[in-house]
Amino acid sequence: MSRLIRDLPGGSAEMLDAFGDEAMVKHMLAFEASLAEAQAAAGLLTGDQASRIAIACAQLPLEVETLAQEAAHAGTLAIPLVQRLRRALGDEALAKKIHWGATSQDAADTALMLQARTGRDLIARELARVQTALAALAERMAAAPMIGRTLLQDAVPITFGLKAANWLLGIDDAARRFARESEGALALQFGGAAGTRAGLDGKGAEIAAHMARILGLASPVVVPWHARRGGVAGLAAALGIVAGATGKIARDISLLSQNAIAEMFEPSVPGRGGSSIMAHKRNPTGCQIVLSAATRAPGLVATILSAMPQEQERGLGGWQAEDPVLADLFVLVHGALLALAPVLEGLKVDTARMAQNLADAGIGTDIGEAVALTQAALKARS
Amino acid sequence: MSRLIRDLPGGSAEMLDAFGDEAMVKHMLAFEASLAEAQAAAGLLTGDQASRIAIACAQLPLEVETLAQEAAHAGTLAIPLVQRLRRALGDEALAKKIHWGATSQDAADTALMLQARTGRDLIARELARVQTALAALAERMAAAPMIGRTLLQDAVPITFGLKAANWLLGIDDAARRFARESEGALALQFGGAAGTRAGLDGKGAEIAAHMARILGLASPVVVPWHARRGGVAGLAAALGIVAGATGKIARDISLLSQNAIAEMFEPSVPGRGGSSIMAHKRNPTGCQIVLSAATRAPGLVATILSAMPQEQERGLGGWQAEDPVLADLFVLVHGALLALAPVLEGLKVDTARMAQNLADAGIGTDIGEAVALTQAALKARS
Amino acid sequence: MSRLIRDLPGGSAEMLDAFGDEAMVKHMLAFEASLAEAQAAAGLLTGDQASRIAIACAQLPLEVETLAQEAAHAGTLAIPLVQRLRRALGDEALAKKIHWGATSQDAADTALMLQARTGRDLIARELARVQTALAALAERMAAAPMIGRTLLQDAVPITFGLKAANWLLGIDDAARRFARESEGALALQFGGAAGTRAGLDGKGAEIAAHMARILGLASPVVVPWHARRGGVAGLAAALGIVAGATGKIARDISLLSQNAIAEMFEPSVPGRGGSSIMAHKRNPTGCQIVLSAATRAPGLVATILSAMPQEQERGLGGWQAEDPVLADLFVLVHGALLALAPVLEGLKVDTARMAQNLADAGIGTDIGEAVALTQAALKARS
Amino acid sequence: MSRLIRDLPGGSAEMLDAFGDEAMVKHMLAFEASLAEAQAAAGLLTGDQASRIAIACAQLPLEVETLAQEAAHAGTLAIPLVQRLRRALGDEALAKKIHWGATSQDAADTALMLQARTGRDLIARELARVQTALAALAERMAAAPMIGRTLLQDAVPITFGLKAANWLLGIDDAARRFARESEGALALQFGGAAGTRAGLDGKGAEIAAHMARILGLASPVVVPWHARRGGVAGLAAALGIVAGATGKIARDISLLSQNAIAEMFEPSVPGRGGSSIMAHKRNPTGCQIVLSAATRAPGLVATILSAMPQEQERGLGGWQAEDPVLADLFVLVHGALLALAPVLEGLKVDTARMAQNLADAGIGTDIGEAVALTQAALKARS
Repeated sequence: MSRLIRDLPGGSAEMLDAFGDEAMVKHMLAFEASLAEAQAAAGLLTGDQASRIAIACAQLPLEVETLAQEAAHAGTLAIPLVQRLRRALGDEALAKKIHWGATSQDAADTALMLQARTGRDLIARELARVQTALAALAERMAAAPMIGRTLLQDAVPITFGLKAANWLLGIDDAARRFARESEGALALQFGGAAGTRAGLDGKGAEIAAHMARILGLASPVVVPWHARRGGVAGLAAALGIVAGATGKIARDISLLSQNAIAEMFEPSVPGRGGSSIMAHKRNPTGCQIVLSAATRAPGLVATILSAMPQEQERGLGGWQAEDPVLADLFVLVHGALLALAPVLEGLKVDTARMAQNLADAGIGTDIGEAVALTQAALKARS
Repeated sequence: MSRLIRDLPGGSAEMLDAFGDEAMVKHMLAFEASLAEAQAAAGLLTGDQASRIAIACAQLPLEVETLAQEAAHAGTLAIPLVQRLRRALGDEALAKKIHWGATSQDAADTALMLQARTGRDLIARELARVQTALAALAERMAAAPMIGRTLLQDAVPITFGLKAANWLLGIDDAARRFARESEGALALQFGGAAGTRAGLDGKGAEIAAHMARILGLASPVVVPWHARRGGVAGLAAALGIVAGATGKIARDISLLSQNAIAEMFEPSVPGRGGSSIMAHKRNPTGCQIVLSAATRAPGLVATILSAMPQEQERGLGGWQAEDPVLADLFVLVHGALLALAPVLEGLKVDTARMAQNLADAGIGTDIGEAVALTQAALKARS
Repeated sequence: MSRLIRDLPGGSAEMLDAFGDEAMVKHMLAFEASLAEAQAAAGLLTGDQASRIAIACAQLPLEVETLAQEAAHAGTLAIPLVQRLRRALGDEALAKKIHWGATSQDAADTALMLQARTGRDLIARELARVQTALAALAERMAAAPMIGRTLLQDAVPITFGLKAANWLLGIDDAARRFARESEGALALQFGGAAGTRAGLDGKGAEIAAHMARILGLASPVVVPWHARRGGVAGLAAALGIVAGATGKIARDISLLSQNAIAEMFEPSVPGRGGSSIMAHKRNPTGCQIVLSAATRAPGLVATILSAMPQEQERGLGGWQAEDPVLADLFVLVHGALLALAPVLEGLKVDTARMAQNLADAGIGTDIGEAVALTQAALKARS
Repeated sequence: MSRLIRDLPGGSAEMLDAFGDEAMVKHMLAFEASLAEAQAAAGLLTGDQASRIAIACAQLPLEVETLAQEAAHAGTLAIPLVQRLRRALGDEALAKKIHWGATSQDAADTALMLQARTGRDLIARELARVQTALAALAERMAAAPMIGRTLLQDAVPITFGLKAANWLLGIDDAARRFARESEGALALQFGGAAGTRAGLDGKGAEIAAHMARILGLASPVVVPWHARRGGVAGLAAALGIVAGATGKIARDISLLSQNAIAEMFEPSVPGRGGSSIMAHKRNPTGCQIVLSAATRAPGLVATILSAMPQEQERGLGGWQAEDPVLADLFVLVHGALLALAPVLEGLKVDTARMAQNLADAGIGTDIGEAVALTQAALKARS
C-alpha cells in the first residue's frame, strides 16, 4: 500500500523493515528451526533431522508476494509456509516433523514478538537520544526565564529549563514503562493446538525453554498465552504513552513557535517545513509528525484493549486484529521519536524574546524556585 | 511495509491500489492539470499554457519511491511534486503558473477524495453483492425454524429467514448512510494558502466549480473545508458502521458454526480455514477477517473524530493524521465485505440441525409471526 | 455519583434530568401503558383492562433508589418494575397482561429513545442558538481583517468573518447530520422475547404502530432492532461530530485569546474564568468545557461502534454498554453547546489588535476574496 | 444523574462513594489542611494559624449541591471552596494564608489521587478475591477433561483446570500492573500557579514532602506533574487491562453456558438472571456486567491517552477531561470484579457434560500435559 500516505509520514525505513514481510517470514522460519533444534536436544529428533530442517528453513526462497496471497487465502501465514518447507525438504517422513507440536498462532505470535524486539531496540535507541537532548536542553536553559502559561493564558514566571525538565521527566517515565512492558511481553509462544503442548512426550516445557534461549526471547512463562493478551495490551499502552509524552513536547514547541510568541523554532533544514505557496513560512514539520502520531496512537491502543476478551483457547478475530495494530504503533512511535530528536537537538531558542515576553506580561521575573527545581530534577535522575 | 500483516488480511489488491502511491500521485497531477485548465477557461492562462501544463502532468515519471522520501523530508508531497513538474516544464515563466493559487492541502485533500471516490465505488459494489446474497438467503430460509437466542441462551423460536432479514436491514441502513456521507464528503478542496482563493482575480469560485466538474467531485461547497472536517468524519463513521454491521453477521455465523450448534458453516474452499495442526478443523476464516475488521474500525473512527478540532485556517497534526486512517478504514471495510460476500453466497445451512436444536429446546415451534415479519421486511425494501 | 466531577462540568440540569432515573422509570411506565392501550385497540384487552393498567402505571410510586438496587440485582430494570406494577394492580389475572408480549429490552430501548428524544430537542435548541450567534458574528465581522494562520504559523490575510463563517458551516453540517440520524434512530422497540412479536394473535405490527403513535416515536420499522444497532451508532457518531465541530471553534478562540495574540476573549462573567491564585488571569473557561467534551466524545463513539457485533437475537454485554455511553454523549454535547453559545454571543473581539497583528506580519492586507467568500457563504445558507 | 443507567449496572456503592462529591470535597479540604500544617512545620505559619485553618477545613459544611453549581460556574471547585473557607475563618489576614502557594489544579489533582487511592484499595480487594476463587477453581478442576476450542471450533482436549489457570494468570498479570501503576501515579500534586512552588521562601519541596506524608500519598516526585500525565495514563491503561482480563473470563463462561454446550452456569441467585418474559431462561447476568465493562473501558483509556499532549504548564480541556473518565474506569472495573467474583466462587460446573462433549468430539482424551501444565502454573505462583 501507499508508502506516501501510510508509511513514510512518520515512519522509518528501519521500523518498516522490522515489521516488513521479509522479517516476518524470516522470524517464522527461525521459529520452525528453533523448534526442531530444541526437539533434537530433547531427544525427539536426531541432530541430523534438526539440521536438515534448519537448512530447509535457511534456504527457503522468501517469495513474499506469493506467500502473502496464499496466506490471505488460507487465513494464516503458517499454513502455506510450512507446506513450502515440507515440499522443500523432499523427505515425506521428516516433513511431518516440521512444525511438530506447534500451531499457526505459535509461529505468528513468536514472529510478532521477534519483530517487536527489533522495534523495541529501535525505539529504545531514539528514546535515549531524546532523553540526552532534553537533559542538555534543561541544563543549558536552566536559568532562562520565560512566562509560564496555564489554560493558554500567561501565568507567572518559569524557566525554559524547568519546562524542558518536565518534558524529560515525561519521557523518562514513558521510557521506563516501555522497557518494563517490553520485558514482560516479549515472550515465546509455544503451546500447540490448544495450548497444552501435547504430543511431545511431556517435554513441552523443556522444548519451550530451549526455543526461548535460541530465539532470545524471555524465558517462557509456564502456560502459553494464546488467549491471554495482557502482555500485548501492556506493550501497546506503553507505546501509546510514549506517543503522548512526545506529543506534549510537540504541542508546546509548536505553540511557542507561533509568530506572536516566537520563543523557539525547529531547526532550519533545507527543503523542510516550507510551504508550497508561501515563501516566508517556516512550518513546524517535526512537531506535525509527532502530533499526528499522538493523535493516532490512542485509537490503536483502544483496539488492542477491546480485542482482549478472546474466545476460549484461541480466539476469532481478536488476536488477528492485533498484529497490524501493534505494528502501526511501533511505526508511529518510532517516527515520532525520529522527528522529535533532531528538533530538540537543534532547537533554536530565542532567550531574548522569552525575556521580552516575560517582561511584557508584567507579572514579575522571580525564577529562583524554577532554577532550583530544575537542578534538583536533573540531579535526581543522574 | 508488510503486506502480510498489514494489508492482505482483509485487504484487496483493488483497494490497496486505490489508496496506493501511484494513485495518489496521479490524483495530485490530475488536480494540478485541472487547475490549469480551469484557469485557462477563466482567462487566467492561455489555452496553450494549460495544455503544456497538462502534458507535463501527464508525462511526469511517477518515481514513487523517491517522491516518498522527498515528501517525508518536506512534510508534504505537493512540494516535491510541484518542483518536479516545474523542472519538467523547462519554462521558468510558465513554471510559476503551476499550482497557482493552490496550497499543498488543496492537492492533498483533493487527491484523498479522489482515492475515496474509487474506494466508495468498490465498497458500494460489494455492499450490493452482500445485499443480494442476504435477500436471497432471507427468502430461501423464510420458513426455516430455528431457536432464537438471547443473552447467549435459548429463548423462543424464530426462523433463519428472519435472522437473515435482520442482517440485511442492518446492511441496508449502513449502505444508505455510507452513500449519503460519501456524497457529502467527496468534494474538491481548493482554497489557497488560507482558504480565501486569493490572487485569482476574484475568479476563485468559478475555477473551483470548473475543477470539480473536470475531476468529477461534488460541486464545491462555497467555502473551502481545510479545517472543517465534519465531512471526513461523517464518512469515517459511516465506514465504521458498515464494519459493525458486517461484524454482527460474522459474529452470528461463527457462533452458529460452533460444533455443538452446527447449524451453518462457511462454504468449503480448498486450502482455506484449515489448521496447521488439526486436520479435522474447519475454521470460519471469512468471519475471522470480518470480525478483525470490526474490531479495528472503531479506534480508527475515534481517531478521525479526535482530530476534528484543528487549529485555525489549516491545522497541525490533526489533518495529517486523517489520510492513513481513512485509507485503513476503506481497506478494512472492503476486505470485510469481500470476505463476507462469498460466505453468504455459499453458506452451508443445516436446516435439519436447526429444527433438531429447536426441538431439543422444548419451547415450542410456532414460527408464524417470524415468517410474516420476514415477508413484510422483504416486501418493504423491494 | 459525583455531580462535581462527572455531571456538572459541561453538563446541564435539563439534560441530566432527561437521562435521569425518574425520566427512565416514567418512560418505561409509558411504554407499558402504551402497550396495554394498543392491545386494547387491537382487541386483545378490553378498554377497562387497559385503563386499569394505565392507572397503575400512572400511580406507581417511583422509589428510584430501591428500584435501582433491584435492577442491579436482576440485571434489568424491567423485571422489578413489572413486578411492582403487577403487585400494585392487585388482580392476578390482569397482572399477567402487563408487559404482554414484550421483553425487557423492548422497554429499555424504548425508554432510551424517549430519553434521546428529549435530548435531541435540547441539543437542537442550543445548536440553533449557536448557529444564530455564528451567523451574526460572521456578518458583523465580514470585513474585519486578520492574519490567517496555518500549521500554527502566520500565513496570509483573511477576515474574522470568513473564520466565523467556516465555524458556522461546520455547525450547520453537524446539525443536519444530527437531525437526520435522530430521525432514523428514534424508533419504538417492540419485538418480544426474540424479536418476532409472537403471542399477539398476529397483531404485533398493528400494536407496534399504535404504540409508536402514542409515544411519539418514529413509525416503527418493520422488524425490531434488538441486535441491529446501526441507528444508535449513527446517532452516537452524529453527536461525536457535533462535539468535534464545537471543539474546533473552542480551539480557535482559545488560541486567539493567548496574551501574545489577544484578538478575542470570552465575555467576562463575574466569578468565572478566574484563577485561585492569579488575580490577573482570565481563563477561557467556556472553551475549556467545550474542549474537554471534544476530548471525551471520540472514545464514547468508539465504544458504541465496537458494541455493534451483538450476539444473535439479543446480545450479551454489548447493548447493555450503550445506554450509559449514549447518555454521556448527550450530556457532554449539550454541555459543550451551552458553554459555547454565550461565548459566541458575548465574544469580545479586538479588531484593532487583529489589524495590528496582520500589519505586523507584513504580508499584505488584501481581503477582497475573503469578504466575497463570507458573503457568498451567508447568502447560500439563507 | 441516573443511577439506573449510569452508575448501578456494574457500579458499587463503595466505589461511587469513593469518587462521590463528599469524598472529593473532603479530600480537597484535607489538601488545604495538610498544606497549612506543612507550612507551619516549615515555619511559614504558626502552629496556631495552621490549627485554625485545620479546624475551618474540618467544620466547613459540605453543601455539595451548591458547591457543584458554583464550581460549574467558576470552572473549578477550588475557587468557591477556598472562598468559603476564607469566609468561614472570619479573619481576613489569616484567610489569605489559606491555599497559600497552591493552585486549583493542585487541590483537584491531589483530591483525584486520594479518590484513586480508595479506588485502588477497593479494586485490590476484589482482585484478590477473584484470584483466590480462580486458584481454587484451577486446583479443583485440574484434572477435569474438556474439549479445547480454537477459532470457535472444537480442537483438542484440555482440562478446565488449565483454562482456569489461564484466566488466573491473566488476572495475576493485570493485578501486578495495576498495583505498580497505582504506586507510580498516586502522588501529591503541589506546584502552585505554574509548577514552580514559588512564593514559599524556597521551602516548596519540604512542604510538598510533608504534605505527602500527611495525606499518605507517594513521596512527591521532584517536579509537579500538572501537564505531565503519564502516571494517570498508565493507571488508566492498567485499569483497562484489568477490564480486558475479566472480560476474557466472562466471554468464556458465557460461551460455555450456551444451552448446546452447557458445561457451566453462573450460580443461581434468586431474582437474578431471569427474563421478563421467559420463565425458563437463566441469563449469565454476571458475565453481562463484566462484558459491558470490558466494552466500555477501551474508549475511556483512549480518551486519557488522547488528552496527554496538554498545553504548556497547565492545559486547557485535556486534564479537565481526565477526572470523570478515570472515575468511570474505577467504577466499571470495580463493578466487573464484584460481578465476576461470585460467579467464579459459585460457578456450577458440569464435568459430566464436559466429558460428554469431549467424547462427542471424537478427537482423543489425553490430558496429561494439560494437568501437568496446570500444576506447574499453580506451583509457580505459590
